[in-house]
Amino acid sequence: MDFLLCNGLIVTVDRAFRVLPNGWLAVRGGEIVGLGDDLSAAPTDLPRIDVEGQAVLPGLINCHTHLPMSLFRGIADDKELMDWLQNYIFPAESQALNAEFVRWGTRLSLWEMLRGGITTVVDMYMFEAEVAAECARLGMRGVLGQSLIDFPTPDFESWDQKVEACRDFVRSYGRHPLITPGLAPHSPYTVSPEHLKQVRELAEELNCPVIIHLAETRAEHDQVLAERGASPVTYLDSLGLLSRRMVAAHVVWPDQAEIELLARRGVGVGHCPQSNAKLASGIAPVVRMIAAGVAVGLGTDGAASNNDLDMWQEMQTANFLQKLNSQSPTVMSARQTLELATREGARAAHLDHLVGSLEVGKRADLITVRLDSPHQLPVYEPVSQLVYTTRSSDVTRTWIDGKLVMDHGRVPGIDEAELRGAVGEQKERVQRILKRI
Amino acid sequence: MDFLLCNGLIVTVDRAFRVLPNGWLAVRGGEIVGLGDDLSAAPTDLPRIDVEGQAVLPGLINCHTHLPMSLFRGIADDKELMDWLQNYIFPAESQALNAEFVRWGTRLSLWEMLRGGITTVVDMYMFEAEVAAECARLGMRGVLGQSLIDFPTPDFESWDQKVEACRDFVRSYGRHPLITPGLAPHSPYTVSPEHLKQVRELAEELNCPVIIHLAETRAEHDQVLAERGASPVTYLDSLGLLSRRMVAAHVVWPDQAEIELLARRGVGVGHCPQSNAKLASGIAPVVRMIAAGVAVGLGTDGAASNNDLDMWQEMQTANFLQKLNSQSPTVMSARQTLELATREGARAAHLDHLVGSLEVGKRADLITVRLDSPHQLPVYEPVSQLVYTTRSSDVTRTWIDGKLVMDHGRVPGIDEAELRGAVGEQKERVQRILKRI
Repeated sequence: MDFLLCNGLIVTVDRAFRVLPNGWLAVRGGEIVGLGDDLSAAPTDLPRIDVEGQAVLPGLINCHTHLPMSLFRGIADDKELMDWLQNYIFPAESQALNAEFVRWGTRLSLWEMLRGGITTVVDMYMFEAEVAAECARLGMRGVLGQSLIDFPTPDFESWDQKVEACRDFVRSYGRHPLITPGLAPHSPYTVSPEHLKQVRELAEELNCPVIIHLAETRAEHDQVLAERGASPVTYLDSLGLLSRRMVAAHVVWPDQAEIELLARRGVGVGHCPQSNAKLASGIAPVVRMIAAGVAVGLGTDGAASNNDLDMWQEMQTANFLQKLNSQSPTVMSARQTLELATREGARAAHLDHLVGSLEVGKRADLITVRLDSPHQLPVYEPVSQLVYTTRSSDVTRTWIDGKLVMDHGRVPGIDEAELRGAVGEQKERVQRILKRI
Repeated sequence: MDFLLCNGLIVTVDRAFRVLPNGWLAVRGGEIVGLGDDLSAAPTDLPRIDVEGQAVLPGLINCHTHLPMSLFRGIADDKELMDWLQNYIFPAESQALNAEFVRWGTRLSLWEMLRGGITTVVDMYMFEAEVAAECARLGMRGVLGQSLIDFPTPDFESWDQKVEACRDFVRSYGRHPLITPGLAPHSPYTVSPEHLKQVRELAEELNCPVIIHLAETRAEHDQVLAERGASPVTYLDSLGLLSRRMVAAHVVWPDQAEIELLARRGVGVGHCPQSNAKLASGIAPVVRMIAAGVAVGLGTDGAASNNDLDMWQEMQTANFLQKLNSQSPTVMSARQTLELATREGARAAHLDHLVGSLEVGKRADLITVRLDSPHQLPVYEPVSQLVYTTRSSDVTRTWIDGKLVMDHGRVPGIDEAELRGAVGEQKERVQRILKRI
């Protein structure tokens, strides 16, 4: 937990976007206690790790995912969203899901994410207590929402049971140093207004975050407008749900007034460019959301709709789609894109007091990244290189809360042979279920 | 040159899209001489390479790039195309380019491409004889066009000198087993109609391909329409230039009649989705081009506008952009996407009689790819996994013409330390030049 990185290219992603070409960074008790460019001013009592030639960055914040769904990776690609959801994902989930499935799927996803430099994950799914246990075990920081939806699910049958489970979940992880437990009502179209109001009250009572899918598709927008008399963002506001507690995923179809509302209410947005593209949901108005002051982070979504959990690719795709959508290559810079994946992502997850940039007093969630792979050479502008050419495979080490949780591809706490075996068994189960669907 | 791969998942990408889950493939004299799923029927006199657990695929065809430009990677990102071209790239090229620069830049790009499973490259640049020499040396298959443009360039001063150089270049590589030399008029807006006609005649005389940028941006479309009275594709046809010799890069702005014209004339198209996105040029109508029968392949474009040379990412981006553009996730499947990068790419490069699929009688341009990386697990649908989750770093071996040209990251013929040193020196030269611009 106590160490000093030296000789690294330190990209702080602080508000001034300070970059130290040959810097040091000191960690004590899992906290960043100093950084600078003059090594003679660094503490001398800490074990030193020489990271010459590598970049040191804040860990990446994945603002929206469903960790266990890696076990459904690629089961039904190239389908319409509602066909995919109703004819494949929901039936597969209803039969395949149990605590064991969730635990192995979460472990598989965390393996991939820690190797790719992700240090915080905003997750929502069923059996979320199992997700939390895996995150805690492997040292991942998480804002984790137990799913709430208006039909029986494999974890809990009735709405009241789900609510009770949420209460237990939030209470049991309430003081964990890495886990922020919360509530995850599925969406405005799968949870009734009465239940959504109950969620708001429960979140206030438990003082916890609310994670939700919001305005993901045109069809959702039209359906909510027809059924509730208002488009999804406006509708949720009418129920009093929009607040600093909320992390809303997707938000592809807000209008300008709704964008301003999201900013005013302090809602965090998890923008999922690859999922929105692969499911043809649309391109979220990220440039306009940023201009309005909305906290926008990036998310991978679950592996069933992406199909990987790679924030480097999300950065590139987010950047490219905004440029295409605005018909201008100047509308989003490499620097802004890196901010979305780190500092702004932390703001969207409501964890910016703890993580998202390399600053004294923040927790030591950080990564080291190669800058000398063939596809990265030569390096004129390190930030350009990090955003436009760097891959997950260039991440060499990941620390969370000062703990080394990934070292050159290896994750302490994962028995790779055991995990591969369990993934194979779960795959066979899912294949048997798919044959019956 | 003679070997037998066995126990692989063989994805032939032939017209029937045959996949052999546990197959063998035999190579003699650089040619595919057999393949099947019953190993007892395989030749017994060949040295065997066990590729259990891996996929065997036709090598990827990069239909448009500028190999030496890797040395300009990231020098001027997030700029408007014309600002980027006229204020950074053209001035940097005019001062930095010489034979040595081109050789090192080409070597750097080939290092990256061979590691990522690219086995054919369609290139256009200055000093193309140097590009050809490097491709020949490292064993890359290339359709290589010597640049022709209406202003003096560092390689040749006058138009007549350029034409003479093209003649020499095409003649000297005319019988090379890997190199198809050709002519590369830069674009309809940088070469006069008289010169374009001359290019057509020269191509007929030398019986060689013509590589060109075509209808890349809205601005080009409007400019050519204003100056020549026809939009770019129609204009080139009026000069008799559209034919089976041509590989046209980008083609973002053709109308429906022009799409049909491209199909009728047999023009190959190199679609560059990441470059077109990063420079905000637009989304090419790939779905409509395919429906009309146009041969469409994928290209990375040069590293200065991408910024990597990664066909796996081009596949994903091409697929995602077509889905977004058509507002339908069913409009392009994983299988079709893999075809663009292989068989259709070979057709676009006019090399489909030689490469692009794993079939008896074709040259042995092939790759082996891991399917058990954490981000690929579990594998329900191998083709989905190859397109949506596989990365360059999953490619384990690359053969071209039966020769092993990349083995687990290493490229025989590249002295990595020497290349890194030379890239560093060229970078310093370019930085000195950029300071003066």
